[in-house]
Amino acid sequence: MAEQEKEAGLPLKENFSEWYNELLMKGEVMDVRYPVKGLYVWFPFGFNIRRNVYDIIRRLLDKDHQETLFPLLIPENEFMKEAEHIKGFEEEVYWVTHGGTSPLEVKLALRPTSETSIYPMYKLWVRSHVDLPLKLYQIVNTFRYETKHTRPLIRLREITSFKEAHTVHATWEDAAAQVDEAISIYTEFYRKLAVPVLASKRPEWDKFPGADYTIATDALMPDGRTLQVGTAHHLGDNFAKTFDITYEDAEGEQVYAHQTCYGISERSIAALISIHGDDKGLVLPPAVAPVQVVIIPIIFKESGNVLAACGDVMTRLEQAGLRAKMDASDIRPGAKYYKWEMRGVPVRLEIGPRDLKNNAAMLVRRDTGEKIQVSLENIVDELSTLLERIHEDLYQKARTSMYEHVFECSDLGEIREKISKGIAKIFWCGSKECGLKLEDDVGAGILGIPTEQTKDCNGRCLVCDSDASVQVYVARTY
Amino acid sequence: MAEQEKEAGLPLKENFSEWYNELLMKGEVMDVRYPVKGLYVWFPFGFNIRRNVYDIIRRLLDKDHQETLFPLLIPENEFMKEAEHIKGFEEEVYWVTHGGTSPLEVKLALRPTSETSIYPMYKLWVRSHVDLPLKLYQIVNTFRYETKHTRPLIRLREITSFKEAHTVHATWEDAAAQVDEAISIYTEFYRKLAVPVLASKRPEWDKFPGADYTIATDALMPDGRTLQVGTAHHLGDNFAKTFDITYEDAEGEQVYAHQTCYGISERSIAALISIHGDDKGLVLPPAVAPVQVVIIPIIFKESGNVLAACGDVMTRLEQAGLRAKMDASDIRPGAKYYKWEMRGVPVRLEIGPRDLKNNAAMLVRRDTGEKIQVSLENIVDELSTLLERIHEDLYQKARTSMYEHVFECSDLGEIREKISKGIAKIFWCGSKECGLKLEDDVGAGILGIPTEQTKDCNGRCLVCDSDASVQVYVARTY
Repeated sequence: MAEQEKEAGLPLKENFSEWYNELLMKGEVMDVRYPVKGLYVWFPFGFNIRRNVYDIIRRLLDKDHQETLFPLLIPENEFMKEAEHIKGFEEEVYWVTHGGTSPLEVKLALRPTSETSIYPMYKLWVRSHVDLPLKLYQIVNTFRYETKHTRPLIRLREITSFKEAHTVHATWEDAAAQVDEAISIYTEFYRKLAVPVLASKRPEWDKFPGADYTIATDALMPDGRTLQVGTAHHLGDNFAKTFDITYEDAEGEQVYAHQTCYGISERSIAALISIHGDDKGLVLPPAVAPVQVVIIPIIFKESGNVLAACGDVMTRLEQAGLRAKMDASDIRPGAKYYKWEMRGVPVRLEIGPRDLKNNAAMLVRRDTGEKIQVSLENIVDELSTLLERIHEDLYQKARTSMYEHVFECSDLGEIREKISKGIAKIFWCGSKECGLKLEDDVGAGILGIPTEQTKDCNGRCLVCDSDASVQVYVARTY
Repeated sequence: MAEQEKEAGLPLKENFSEWYNELLMKGEVMDVRYPVKGLYVWFPFGFNIRRNVYDIIRRLLDKDHQETLFPLLIPENEFMKEAEHIKGFEEEVYWVTHGGTSPLEVKLALRPTSETSIYPMYKLWVRSHVDLPLKLYQIVNTFRYETKHTRPLIRLREITSFKEAHTVHATWEDAAAQVDEAISIYTEFYRKLAVPVLASKRPEWDKFPGADYTIATDALMPDGRTLQVGTAHHLGDNFAKTFDITYEDAEGEQVYAHQTCYGISERSIAALISIHGDDKGLVLPPAVAPVQVVIIPIIFKESGNVLAACGDVMTRLEQAGLRAKMDASDIRPGAKYYKWEMRGVPVRLEIGPRDLKNNAAMLVRRDTGEKIQVSLENIVDELSTLLERIHEDLYQKARTSMYEHVFECSDLGEIREKISKGIAKIFWCGSKECGLKLEDDVGAGILGIPTEQTKDCNGRCLVCDSDASVQVYVARTY
């Protein structure tokens, strides 16, 4: 793309929505100009971030899950088997009705999620207790006919990068333990993206259609709204009964299996971009940055030694497994800084004639702007250490900010005020009636009961004033 | 799955079609029981092969391409822009007509291939000659409403693993060079799968709809039919004119760009499985085998030392980056051999009490059955060398067999006889009339003109008897 277009600055981050949309284009993450609402195109740079992010979740899951792949198209009769599930999705399913110019005999749904694609096969695959637990996952595109306002990476008609795991267990308790394990994996995953999350058990009316219960992780976005960035569902034996998934137990009896499923999408990337980015553009955690270090030769008259020194450093960094890039292009240094800052490269490494005389280089942190002079000799170690420090600083800063925006509230007025800035934490008796009334009164949603409850927590429900032994999060949500 | 089901043997490979179908199930590559015709499920083991195969093509392309991702759904108006292209695909496109219970305003096609999804964006992305060449690729699911007999990995309604590259160049010549480069990359890719391929320029009537010309690579399957396993298309400026993809050249003029596209699918896996497999099951080239070495402890009475020695070897192999697995399960050795042979593990490593006394282990090659005694001390090096040798032997064996099945033929009767065994190579004047007549007469297709032509090649067209300066391949095709 022509340089002049990209040179225009970003809106300030305090205007979050405009900033976010512009950043996705200028940071070359997503192109929003595809000619269908709710569908977007990954720029190669953005896709490179995606690769790194999904490599992380793959590595975490591969420890005891196996990756696989099921079809996108689900025949109507399978899709319509689970009553609760259909109710949850019927308004947002895309239907394929024609092949070529002929109408299909059986309509095919584009998976909005893959339970009804996978479980007819699980019926065939699960036979005996020795087959359990079965833990599979796939990374696929899924589809929702969203009628709400769509937004790149956040609310999509094609979710391009849905990582969904589906597990089968002998008992309800085993499945419950797997849900906890999933939330623990997701929390670790987000830790590796330097994104702090809050896990909570969703209220009954907000659980996954067909599940016994749902635990979700939320990230706090810069505008004070929360983004659901991971969910884990205990399916009980509900789907097992619908799809006839049984196994022979140790006593030779055929019994229904218990199941879980849990998902992560490209919202993970929306969260990391939004939380870490600033007025100058992307700020990428080193673990997912396509370029971790950009080397800028500072050239005045003669370039020979400086270019050679930069090339040498480049080679050493690559050998050490760092993702380095040298920008020796013919544009002015200011334009280079602008470009690589917009793309969130964690460290800029400058070498000029004076540095070279001192056998040194200048490192500039993207996140803080801090400049650090280092000797060329130790540069690989110094950089590796610095990248780790940057990751840790990004995480701690985001974590501190998140907890500063969790407010204990003791009346409805206070909730209304605080949720304009972040998350309210309140006592609630647990009844659906009080919950829905509260949501209606404050114009926000109950996220759920935190998985880590404060001990001996006692208070009175903010709605009905009866005893309440748990606190819940309330927030405006995406 | 229950052991007894898998224990039944395979049909002989000489009954190729039955053998292939059974092998996909018993070797746990694809499950064919999904309840929609032409859609199949990757078993985790099969998907692991796919990962390794696609890692290879990614590494080859990443040298000077960038990976990206475009939407699956193409609006009818974009899809219908290129007349030749539509003609080629209109009978096999799936159409999404409804979102939820409402009809869509604009019908959406499931991409059968992504030209019409990508090129509206290329119109926006390509501005100046400095943006060129642009070389992107994506690995995606594509859809064809196949009315012919479907077959797992070969003829699918959902192609789950379509790697398609789309490049943009300044000149027709640059694009032509890229087509050659694509064929060279594909040949190298197949070399890494130990699969020999023949490249040829498809006749006019068999080129990609909308292309100037098509060069394809074919593999020879065990039943003598060829499988098209890679295609590269020179699109000229045909799509550039349709989608208005222009760039400003060095003189400041707006001119049309020239384009290519080239694709590979899971047919690559069909080829490697079919060519290398045998009556006992899969025979996987080490580069793509999910398990490269299976360690079988041979235990009679006391297991302590043997198990410890196996564990030690396992650790050393893993540290050396080999994919090793120990099978210390409680089933008889014969059943273990059967299981890992079916799954194509290149080397079985046995250690028993007598081996241990000699500080040795036994290696058994999957491809030849050869047994090799090695000292435990050198086992990592010995195995690494052996895996390379196995790869080379598999390739050479397949290559020799392929060329033994290319027959120079000098009359139609000979063609008819030879194409029941393999590929006929014949003189052809190049006219469409003779070509179609020939195809009709012998009941097979002209693959095309080999990219590597014998020099000073002269003969007479087998149909019209006029001068012919090129030879072409003729074969029964999948």
